[in-house]
Amino acid sequence: MRILTTAALALALSAPVLATPPAKPARLGLCAACHGEDGMARIPGAPNLAGQKLDYLREALRQYRDGRRDIPVMRAATGPLTDAELDQLAQWFSAQTPSRAAP
Amino acid sequence: MRILTTAALALALSAPVLATPPAKPARLGLCAACHGEDGMARIPGAPNLAGQKLDYLREALRQYRDGRRDIPVMRAATGPLTDAELDQLAQWFSAQTPSRAAP
Repeated sequence: MRILTTAALALALSAPVLATPPAKPARLGLCAACHGEDGMARIPGAPNLAGQKLDYLREALRQYRDGRRDIPVMRAATGPLTDAELDQLAQWFSAQTPSRAAP
Repeated sequence: MRILTTAALALALSAPVLATPPAKPARLGLCAACHGEDGMARIPGAPNLAGQKLDYLREALRQYRDGRRDIPVMRAATGPLTDAELDQLAQWFSAQTPSRAAP
């Protein structure tokens, strides 16, 4: 019995850290209109976000909010959001699996 | 025979436009150092480009070259490139298939 418990524990500890998908962010709706809830863009000009690098998404969202990347629609969308809310969104989109779509 | 030829022609015309992958751009080497030849980023802070929307990549490359997105390393990399060379790079990365990687 102890062996089984040890084996189960070892198995659990060896699982990838991000095996559990992040919870759906409360602020996802506004992003999803253009980028898709799954991070595959729905409109011309908007980038796919699914599977994008987490550090890149976190930094990009801060740049949009602070105006360092000056895209009015993104500044309006991110302006009211806290760092924690931006991070939840970055984690959500980074964890999505990209699908092939028409370029 | 005429029916077969017509059928073959119809099949050929119905194939996706991008079924043939784009030729490897002459300028790919510099991009690949950070973004990978396959568009999966090799360094922190650089975004994945594989499978990204073609129109987004084309516009982003022009913004970097013209300084509207002011990232010195990207401005230096794109500065000498023509519109046609930027488009070849956008088409190349857009046509790559994203792979899952650690975020």
